[in-house]
Amino acid sequence: MTVVTVTPNPALDLTWRAERVVPGGSHRVPAAGVRAGGKGLNVARVLHAQGVAARALTTAGGATGRIFADELAESGVPHRIVPVSVPTRRSAAIVDEALGDTSIFNERGENPTAAEWAELVAAADEELERASVLVVSGSLPPGAPDAIVEVLVAAAHGRGVPAVVDTSGPALLRAARAGADLVKPNREELADATGLADPIAGALALIELGAGGVLCSLGAEGMLLIAGPITDDGAPAVALRARLAEPLAGNPTGAGDAAVAGAASVLDAGVPIRDVAERLLRRATAWSAAAVLAPLAGEIDPAHAELAERLDLSPVPLPRTDRA
Amino acid sequence: MTVVTVTPNPALDLTWRAERVVPGGSHRVPAAGVRAGGKGLNVARVLHAQGVAARALTTAGGATGRIFADELAESGVPHRIVPVSVPTRRSAAIVDEALGDTSIFNERGENPTAAEWAELVAAADEELERASVLVVSGSLPPGAPDAIVEVLVAAAHGRGVPAVVDTSGPALLRAARAGADLVKPNREELADATGLADPIAGALALIELGAGGVLCSLGAEGMLLIAGPITDDGAPAVALRARLAEPLAGNPTGAGDAAVAGAASVLDAGVPIRDVAERLLRRATAWSAAAVLAPLAGEIDPAHAELAERLDLSPVPLPRTDRA
Repeated sequence: MTVVTVTPNPALDLTWRAERVVPGGSHRVPAAGVRAGGKGLNVARVLHAQGVAARALTTAGGATGRIFADELAESGVPHRIVPVSVPTRRSAAIVDEALGDTSIFNERGENPTAAEWAELVAAADEELERASVLVVSGSLPPGAPDAIVEVLVAAAHGRGVPAVVDTSGPALLRAARAGADLVKPNREELADATGLADPIAGALALIELGAGGVLCSLGAEGMLLIAGPITDDGAPAVALRARLAEPLAGNPTGAGDAAVAGAASVLDAGVPIRDVAERLLRRATAWSAAAVLAPLAGEIDPAHAELAERLDLSPVPLPRTDRA
Repeated sequence: MTVVTVTPNPALDLTWRAERVVPGGSHRVPAAGVRAGGKGLNVARVLHAQGVAARALTTAGGATGRIFADELAESGVPHRIVPVSVPTRRSAAIVDEALGDTSIFNERGENPTAAEWAELVAAADEELERASVLVVSGSLPPGAPDAIVEVLVAAAHGRGVPAVVDTSGPALLRAARAGADLVKPNREELADATGLADPIAGALALIELGAGGVLCSLGAEGMLLIAGPITDDGAPAVALRARLAEPLAGNPTGAGDAAVAGAASVLDAGVPIRDVAERLLRRATAWSAAAVLAPLAGEIDPAHAELAERLDLSPVPLPRTDRA
């Protein structure tokens, strides 16, 4: 079985590496690193590299879309591209090699036509016939139909396939309401979308809305997994936190995508999250940490197996509930 | 008659504008501005916009070269592209709109084959049949044949056409030795190439090597024109400086290219620089200043005519010569 990832707003990732960035200065740099980017593509890359069957579904258009498609073909990651009339956006990364800092400039992207969105959904529905899990990852271009994430989740559920959604803002709330089996915001995205500063309270709010579970990265403080169902006393079936023994230094770009890949690799049709919670959280945290150790988004360091063993998993204290 | 510009190392210019650049941060930005870039192309754009017949000759290759060629076709600037097997390089500019700062990341570029260089020279020779001036502008890709600038200058002279060269490093010295009619370094490039900190001494050294004249931008201190022949007492025929009444605030990218365009528009076959020195210096300085006032390289503000009138031209004091 196969993890199908959908990337509704892909980007041509261009990365320039300067020995030292001088703001306002002129720099001689080697040719840009060029990659077919976007969060769902990174998820598929990680899965493919880890030997998990994955298939990346996305759109491409214009001259940047041709470069994007060429790079994706070279990558060897199984994929399917729906051609669209709008050009694939660019994302520019400037690496300051002296500081180890990366500044990222993400174009917002242009909105495909309604007919092109319908083609993407139809293609997803076809791919879901042979899928074990659906992953929908990343932003939507401005103007995209609000319902696109819900439609994809519904398509997965129509095939009996669980759906993992990694997005932010109102789309995150809509994914929860659509009954996504797992959503993966980071702490800021969770607080932004729910208006609740405490990630545990935010996760419970998304589960109340309809999400099966919430995987929330807390940066150096580890990763949280809260999953339903919520019992009558207000406690969720799963409330766990994983932490590394010591913090890691590296490149956090793509760490969230590696976490999603780890989680998706553990899920399967008909398996509730509560039955695989520890394995899911351990693998998501280990792959995420291993992504920090790897230089490029979509790659993870082979140390992940060892990291998974060294994780500390513990139940999280739940907020007091004052239900009648 | 027509100014023919040659750009040996063109670039696809990509410009992203961020409201405020946070080093190491992630930014949402509008789609990049995309332009066929390179100094000779900017020169041709300025001439074309000012109603001076110009024709841009350059190379293009790969997927970036196709985007480059499409943009150049849309620009309306008359041009000719020699296809090459190496991809056209990219140049990334990140504009911090709050600070008004631009950070530039120039890829070095890849070297076309010897046969492709020969095709560029043959194309230049053909274009020179209908040319009044040749302009060779910009860097060379690493590994390019050392003699390329000399060959182009010789091709121009073979047709009785004066040659203006804007380049730096050893190529600037070679252009002088080849007898370029005018070279246009800025103060740093002149000091770097000649090893002489004083721009007047540096300019005289290039004229001793064989250059007809040296137009040197001094930034806020204006622009210098030194031109031969050098008389027996060591004084050049022309030694003038132009200054603006007050300094201008704006974007200096492309100011040097506008100066070259202004100078080239005044030159013609058989006209020595000393006969047009004041007009040349006045126009080069005014167009350069007007480029600072315009937002994009290759554009100049219509205020240039007024600026040209307000310039202060004065003879420059020459260093004492101790010749026997």
